[in-house]
Amino acid sequence: MSIIVDTSNSPYARLRPVPLTAVRLADTFWLPRLRLNRQVTLSSQYRQLEQTGRVDNFRRAAGKKTGPFQGYCFNDSDVYKWIEAAAWTLAASPDPTLEQMVDALVAWVAAAQQPDGYLNTYFMFDKAAERWTNLRDRHELYCAGHLIQAAIAHYRATGSAGLLDVARRLANHICVVFGPRAGQRLGAAGHPEIELALVELWRATRERNYLEQAQFFLDVRGQGLVGGDAYRQDHQPFRSLDAMVGHAVRAVYLNAGAADLYAETGEAALRGTLERLWSRMVSRQMYISGGIGSRYEGEAFGQDYELPNERAYAETCAAIGSVMWNWRMLALSGDARYADVLETALYNGVLAGLGLDGQSYFYRNSLATTGAHCRQPWFDCACCPPNIARLLAALPGYLYSFSSEGIWVHLYAQGEAELALGNSIVRLVQHTHYPWDGEIAIEVHGEGTFTLFLRVPGWYDGVGGQLTINGQPIAEALIPGSYAQLGRRWHAGDVARLSLPMPLCHIQSHPYVAENVGRIALMRGPLLYCVEQADHADIDLRDIALSNAAPLTAEFCPDLLGGVVVLRGQARVILSGEVWGGQLYRALKAGATNHASRPLELTAIPYYAWANRAPGPMRVWLQCGE
Amino acid sequence: MSIIVDTSNSPYARLRPVPLTAVRLADTFWLPRLRLNRQVTLSSQYRQLEQTGRVDNFRRAAGKKTGPFQGYCFNDSDVYKWIEAAAWTLAASPDPTLEQMVDALVAWVAAAQQPDGYLNTYFMFDKAAERWTNLRDRHELYCAGHLIQAAIAHYRATGSAGLLDVARRLANHICVVFGPRAGQRLGAAGHPEIELALVELWRATRERNYLEQAQFFLDVRGQGLVGGDAYRQDHQPFRSLDAMVGHAVRAVYLNAGAADLYAETGEAALRGTLERLWSRMVSRQMYISGGIGSRYEGEAFGQDYELPNERAYAETCAAIGSVMWNWRMLALSGDARYADVLETALYNGVLAGLGLDGQSYFYRNSLATTGAHCRQPWFDCACCPPNIARLLAALPGYLYSFSSEGIWVHLYAQGEAELALGNSIVRLVQHTHYPWDGEIAIEVHGEGTFTLFLRVPGWYDGVGGQLTINGQPIAEALIPGSYAQLGRRWHAGDVARLSLPMPLCHIQSHPYVAENVGRIALMRGPLLYCVEQADHADIDLRDIALSNAAPLTAEFCPDLLGGVVVLRGQARVILSGEVWGGQLYRALKAGATNHASRPLELTAIPYYAWANRAPGPMRVWLQCGE
Repeated sequence: MSIIVDTSNSPYARLRPVPLTAVRLADTFWLPRLRLNRQVTLSSQYRQLEQTGRVDNFRRAAGKKTGPFQGYCFNDSDVYKWIEAAAWTLAASPDPTLEQMVDALVAWVAAAQQPDGYLNTYFMFDKAAERWTNLRDRHELYCAGHLIQAAIAHYRATGSAGLLDVARRLANHICVVFGPRAGQRLGAAGHPEIELALVELWRATRERNYLEQAQFFLDVRGQGLVGGDAYRQDHQPFRSLDAMVGHAVRAVYLNAGAADLYAETGEAALRGTLERLWSRMVSRQMYISGGIGSRYEGEAFGQDYELPNERAYAETCAAIGSVMWNWRMLALSGDARYADVLETALYNGVLAGLGLDGQSYFYRNSLATTGAHCRQPWFDCACCPPNIARLLAALPGYLYSFSSEGIWVHLYAQGEAELALGNSIVRLVQHTHYPWDGEIAIEVHGEGTFTLFLRVPGWYDGVGGQLTINGQPIAEALIPGSYAQLGRRWHAGDVARLSLPMPLCHIQSHPYVAENVGRIALMRGPLLYCVEQADHADIDLRDIALSNAAPLTAEFCPDLLGGVVVLRGQARVILSGEVWGGQLYRALKAGATNHASRPLELTAIPYYAWANRAPGPMRVWLQCGE
Repeated sequence: MSIIVDTSNSPYARLRPVPLTAVRLADTFWLPRLRLNRQVTLSSQYRQLEQTGRVDNFRRAAGKKTGPFQGYCFNDSDVYKWIEAAAWTLAASPDPTLEQMVDALVAWVAAAQQPDGYLNTYFMFDKAAERWTNLRDRHELYCAGHLIQAAIAHYRATGSAGLLDVARRLANHICVVFGPRAGQRLGAAGHPEIELALVELWRATRERNYLEQAQFFLDVRGQGLVGGDAYRQDHQPFRSLDAMVGHAVRAVYLNAGAADLYAETGEAALRGTLERLWSRMVSRQMYISGGIGSRYEGEAFGQDYELPNERAYAETCAAIGSVMWNWRMLALSGDARYADVLETALYNGVLAGLGLDGQSYFYRNSLATTGAHCRQPWFDCACCPPNIARLLAALPGYLYSFSSEGIWVHLYAQGEAELALGNSIVRLVQHTHYPWDGEIAIEVHGEGTFTLFLRVPGWYDGVGGQLTINGQPIAEALIPGSYAQLGRRWHAGDVARLSLPMPLCHIQSHPYVAENVGRIALMRGPLLYCVEQADHADIDLRDIALSNAAPLTAEFCPDLLGGVVVLRGQARVILSGEVWGGQLYRALKAGATNHASRPLELTAIPYYAWANRAPGPMRVWLQCGE
């Protein structure tokens, strides 16, 4: 049962998961990406793991290789994330070559484990005495968390308990070492991750220890055990937080763990904190791409409305962490606003982190650049590449959920799913070109009385949409950012059709976002657009002014960037060089003439697809001309 | 001869300096600040030097105190900068108490010097073996440079050569250790400062060694001797630079040293580089306050047009460094554009760094804040406080220059100067309320044929100004950003009168400055204005919209903030909370209604005077309403 986040038995979750193996994609958007993930991304990443010594670190710890530890102290986690990605991939369909690679890695991981269960290849030999002495900086609990996640994935995907046993021995060791009891040590993770991993381990094993340990690690935060700073989410007790601060990845990973805890414990204070933090984030601290983290310093959240474009940090891992957190919030509530944020982050903030070649990555994701940024094949700190890989590998698991009322459809993509509802199997077949248009037909194959929850995305502007069953309009209003609830007795061959116009939207941002004043961005459906130098020779993209009134056309170009809908239309180029010369500041004269400008044929491409042609400038937010 | 930068004999400088002792201020703007500097700033800083162990570090090095070294490795430099400030202050008028403090400090510095001339209190005892081993990070040459500057100031101000001998012994030691010859070491300063200090030491002593050593330290840059990074200005050979990058203070200190070198050597490549860098900085990398340095990371310059307001770094020391550099460029050329930038930085970027109490400081100088920032009495890294003190103490030396043609007036302030022109003394008496208005009368007492160069500031908009001699209009056009040249035979009692209207200016910035699009700033004369929460209860300053057409009145308020001209007028408050609710992004509908707003009585105060009342938000750039 290849389930990513198993809320099947979580008393305080509304939604229950659908195994990713129950879902078969047949679309032109995600399926090619999942194939690329399998064929290119995973194999190229494996090479990187070998070439950079990350696997050798395990061989060394197992006593089969000499020489120094290689790379950063948290490098084990990259191996674990890769195993997790490979496991979900194997769950979807067999692949003997990949299986061999996984088996080999799992064997090295197991061989590196110490008799007492300890496992971290950095703290070996001369560094063994330093184990658990610097939780603030040395990522031991973080690596342990990723081992646990990888082991659970491996177990669920393959049925083999080998790696899970390794993870449990380490988890048991951690439960012995850390805790509130006499002889135990107080400690928290300098980088959250262990919390969500331990809750999932409880779900996978029903060993209550793990849940309690997760609770312990959350509860001790804010006491200065790991520095007392916001960077490590240790500045305040979790339940007193009211804004997202500090390191963005740490923050959303911690929130994901807290949401997991809530699903098990139902503690109201936890839920209240999570909702408070979520509202603050999405109303003041999130890029239009769904990216988060505004500052280079500390890879951190900024203040309210601090969202610089060119200097955006918006780490790929942070967008992935937002998907993780929102997925859990959605499971708790069935509230579509979480699915909206998840979708935005997925299609834009996450996907921009991966090149169309499947083997190049952005760590930071600017929303504008005047330079020539390229994705890199790897990083010394390589958290993002295997993080994208594991998310993509698990993607089919994010399309559907169950609840006691019926079946939920969160994401739209051509394909089908076999859903075990009670004792019967309901097969849903999606026909759609989403995200390129908003026509979605869902064939129901099977019998039963249940509610079909169809997500009406928040990007829908409430005009012109239609919902039918077998061609009969359903009276229910289509409310953007909600689930349309189709409760009835379903018969084989019934077709629910959701038809949403997908016009181009000119988006403006709150005027407190300093860099976006007087600017608009383009969105169409869930996709954010941008302009690239590759489509606009000989102009400075900063000079483009686009009128809100000018019509733009949307056209699918199958041969461009893997097949994308391109937006085209009339804009202007302001001749700011002519107007300003070398001046930086000047007196504004009343009644001064407007900027001189000339016409421009504008082309905008999906933001996720930028930087896949000649490297050059890019912009999301354009000047809004008259 | 209390001369700050002695270009008297520099073959490639156009201007020659006027000793600061020749100038007596009698104005209400600078004179009270210089008095405060003497009475409050210097004494409170001396207490800080003692309380933080900075003086004890010298006692320890002299063998008169045990215990560890205290603070940062560059703490000696704060003591030296304080001595320099005190020396210029003593030059202006005697002060026995201050003199005693200086003498005591000078004695400790001398006592800390090693037999071979080495002097740095950090690298003593157990750290002695590490001397000169980490030029990249340990600031030894930087501290040496400040000792040299302090010693020259002390010598010129008091005539005593005691500290100068100490500095020369250290400089001689440095000249032996570092250089291109066999047995010498290649090395550059991780933090520039030694370059300008050694040139000035050559000027003070005419020992050519020092000039050659400065040249050496400049020439070896860009070879990776100190890390090879832009942060330390070691990424490229100096003469190949074409943009200001890296640590802002390091960059401008280095440029000041290079300008000093040019004044002596006349090397065209050096001058070309300096002019290229200067043009780039003022046209793309400088705040309207004259502050520089856009990034927290590395306290660094940003890319072209990267000038965030709330996240401005704009270190006080960087603005001071800009004054230093521009002063030298002005001396080379007599070009008023350098005086304009100097004046802007001085009145705004520098002065905002000091509280009206004379004993609190900003290290960073934001151009907007939504929080409650306060100046601090001191910093662990306390470069800025004594840097302001030494600049203010030397300020009278920045008002005038000589050239072969005559006398130059750069800055306007009520007071007088006794200027030795050839064999005669010319006394100039300035009558003005500058910077509060633009009426300047200069009485000439003395006889002679020479040109009086009166600076016509760049802020003058070219309309309505007048220049007279003895009431007779001078035909010469008043060109903003130039020196009006009044060449004639002058007689005692002649009065040159420069009358410049000082209207309020609405300033806009180049549209590539992302945060300033659709915004205006207010300037009046050389002063930048801002709005503070203290004058606007119950609104969010970000909601203020000011029309370019709305008249503002300027009124001098003698009891406010030490006496300032306040700007008042009608503005609007946009009700963005009402309009936006909790939304961060939304679709812009064609023909959407304008922002709801209500009227506001706006008050703007000079930027330098902000944060001297109840702590709270502040903004320089305001939304420009219709």
